[in-house]
Amino acid sequence: MNKKAYTPEEPIAAIATALVPAALGVIRTSGRNAVQLVSKVFSRPKALLDAKPNSIVYGWIKDSSKPAGQQNIDEVLAAIYHAPKSYTGEDMVEIFCHGGTITVISILNLLLANGFRQAEKGEFTFRSFINGKGDLTKAEAVKEIIGSKTDESRSHAAERLEGSLYSEIEDIKQQLLKVIASLEVEIEYPEDEENIADSFDTTELRKIKKRMETLCASWDTEKLYQDGAKVVLCGKTNAGKSSLFNVLLKEERAIVSDIHGTTRDWLESTVSFDGIPVQLYDTAGLRETDDIIEQKGVERSISLTEQADIILYLIDSSTGITAEDTDFIQNFQDEKSKLVILMNKSDKAQKTAEELTATAKQSFPDTPIIPVSTKTTDGIRDLVCSVKKLLSAKEKKEASVGLGSERQKKLIDEALESVNHVFVVSEEGFTLDAAVQDIEDAISSLAEITGEVTPDDILESVFSSFCVGK
Amino acid sequence: MNKKAYTPEEPIAAIATALVPAALGVIRTSGRNAVQLVSKVFSRPKALLDAKPNSIVYGWIKDSSKPAGQQNIDEVLAAIYHAPKSYTGEDMVEIFCHGGTITVISILNLLLANGFRQAEKGEFTFRSFINGKGDLTKAEAVKEIIGSKTDESRSHAAERLEGSLYSEIEDIKQQLLKVIASLEVEIEYPEDEENIADSFDTTELRKIKKRMETLCASWDTEKLYQDGAKVVLCGKTNAGKSSLFNVLLKEERAIVSDIHGTTRDWLESTVSFDGIPVQLYDTAGLRETDDIIEQKGVERSISLTEQADIILYLIDSSTGITAEDTDFIQNFQDEKSKLVILMNKSDKAQKTAEELTATAKQSFPDTPIIPVSTKTTDGIRDLVCSVKKLLSAKEKKEASVGLGSERQKKLIDEALESVNHVFVVSEEGFTLDAAVQDIEDAISSLAEITGEVTPDDILESVFSSFCVGK
Repeated sequence: MNKKAYTPEEPIAAIATALVPAALGVIRTSGRNAVQLVSKVFSRPKALLDAKPNSIVYGWIKDSSKPAGQQNIDEVLAAIYHAPKSYTGEDMVEIFCHGGTITVISILNLLLANGFRQAEKGEFTFRSFINGKGDLTKAEAVKEIIGSKTDESRSHAAERLEGSLYSEIEDIKQQLLKVIASLEVEIEYPEDEENIADSFDTTELRKIKKRMETLCASWDTEKLYQDGAKVVLCGKTNAGKSSLFNVLLKEERAIVSDIHGTTRDWLESTVSFDGIPVQLYDTAGLRETDDIIEQKGVERSISLTEQADIILYLIDSSTGITAEDTDFIQNFQDEKSKLVILMNKSDKAQKTAEELTATAKQSFPDTPIIPVSTKTTDGIRDLVCSVKKLLSAKEKKEASVGLGSERQKKLIDEALESVNHVFVVSEEGFTLDAAVQDIEDAISSLAEITGEVTPDDILESVFSSFCVGK
Repeated sequence: MNKKAYTPEEPIAAIATALVPAALGVIRTSGRNAVQLVSKVFSRPKALLDAKPNSIVYGWIKDSSKPAGQQNIDEVLAAIYHAPKSYTGEDMVEIFCHGGTITVISILNLLLANGFRQAEKGEFTFRSFINGKGDLTKAEAVKEIIGSKTDESRSHAAERLEGSLYSEIEDIKQQLLKVIASLEVEIEYPEDEENIADSFDTTELRKIKKRMETLCASWDTEKLYQDGAKVVLCGKTNAGKSSLFNVLLKEERAIVSDIHGTTRDWLESTVSFDGIPVQLYDTAGLRETDDIIEQKGVERSISLTEQADIILYLIDSSTGITAEDTDFIQNFQDEKSKLVILMNKSDKAQKTAEELTATAKQSFPDTPIIPVSTKTTDGIRDLVCSVKKLLSAKEKKEASVGLGSERQKKLIDEALESVNHVFVVSEEGFTLDAAVQDIEDAISSLAEITGEVTPDDILESVFSSFCVGK
């Protein structure tokens, strides 16, 4: 979207629901005269024009350019909002129609032929931002909440939508401004200190720096909740990979019901591991084979393990660790840090879970070992917790306020760099002005996070990754 | 859905939009205390409870069973409707949230934990029907409009949604009742006619019969608009099938953007042929081959042609009709009635379009022949019109009122049978009572179409084919 070409209040329209047949579809409009423009294609124009803000009017969408008898497009409800009390802060009409793809497309086309322009990606939220309905962290949280893959991811995004990150950034900015104020007093009314180090008490700034570092560190966890992780099941044919795949889909909530791939390729599904969205892969059994197609399947399995965050290697503990298992596990030496060995079919084994672990430990002393049974589901919770722990190894204590995007992370890094430079400046005995400049730079980076001061091209890249209708 | 177990006004909830990330999601609720129940999970319960009917309230969906800081599910708008002025005729709340799949699922789950039951398929529309908000033809039109594949199909459904079919059926019923009334006068106060044929003037009944027949005949066309047709492109490799496929997708509006299949299999897309939804298949080139996989592709192409409504056989007219072409066309003798020969690359041919047609006519005298060029798009409109004409060959003059479902067609057939029986009765000299009985049977079949008298199991089968949330 070319933000520079943004014409305030130009009437826009877009389909706001997925183009998949469903009970309801929604078409959104916003801008100058939105109500008047919609009334031109509405069976009860007067009811629409007279409607109170935040009210709903029943009627038909009608195309009067068509022959009589074919004019009715759909029976709808229209919701009316008056500026500034609307999502965008402009006049808005939302049309709730029957959720056929053709219905929503026909209504949108009719609106486009009657004074509306097709909205660009994120343009409703962009207008909301421009009109001061929320800052940029809130806008990004909207996008995040739509893409959330687990309830926990959604909950983190909802906090930012509510303004937790905005408040934290604003507060840090205020604290930095206070530091500047005290430095400026020093500059205006200098005492006779020899150098900056004596005249500048960095205690406050250190506290602020600490707070920024905590925010910075939150991104590892937040990113994990947003993007999730790849977990690949592998092991010999008949080690029980497919059973484990199905048990995990059932026990941990599977998020996407449709599973891709073919028997020769792999199966794939998204599962919540205690709130972490895990893309789970069930691969072809690893075995030497002459069948070219099967051989390709094995090759793809290996390529999947290379991209994996965690490899779960299944061993059939009823038959014990074989030479082949040892070979394959040796092959994973490069990916050692992400390997977990599962002693499967623990229910069938002659040994207890503890004995199984102890035996495997002798062969693979440095690898986590978990006995599981896909039949009794013993050990499955253990497995989920261990994987989550491994994934979040880098994760510090969970922060109360978290970052929501790479963009925010980059800017807070920049702000931190500026703050760190103040200490260099201070130690190297530069003037106080240099310190003020650094803190101003930090504030400016923070202001970009919330969108208080954000270049047009950045705005463009933020909103262009939204979906249409948002 | 077990309609017999229908508990009036039991509070129900369902997701009404597709489970695909989008700008907006909608969760629908209906039933006794719907507003009170939603207010329990709403950040501004009082605002919701005090809201006027047909108004919209801003707030957050909150799960107070969660720890503080994690209670906010999503920022939403809630639309309030009071019985009987709502879709179902009951109290309703519709929640408009951000369209993340997890968001809508979380909100639904929260509602289900707070007094709502998951709505069954079509239950909202069923309640609307039970509460007299519309007859069964209207309910079926709702389902039809959601499934419409072209704008014309949608338009036909919209007419039924508006009540065109309902009015026609009611009117026919009224006419039949008048016939009964006149027959009953005859029975009460018989004149001295010898037999029924003399005492019964069938002029009116013949008019009604005609009207019912017109309605009956409409189903061929309506079914075509609803279900569409399968059109398969075939021909030798390099005859230009893929180019034609792409030209048709571009010239006629392609309805589904994603195209399935692989190069070795086939491509498939839905395209509107003058309002008829056409499932268009681009198949593997027909040629003798030793490659097993390609061989399979050819076999599948042939199997597709067997299921096709129309086969478009492409000939490269720049090289002319080859022996191979003749062979393949011979193979289609069983499907002769659905075969159309396209003389493609007419722009490259040495002959005019007329000459091309004349030459091909010599080899294939009984098959429609159309010269086309995918390069200049000459002949493409011709092709589309010819295909539409062939598909609707059975179609009589387009009726002003059309039937919307197989169920309706079956019942109007039954009603017609009863009416036809009156003429038999009349000719064979039965009593007038027998004629009255037949007409009553016809009325009863018609009453079942509109749902005035409809057995529970029929209702169940009608509504269970709806989507959830409708």
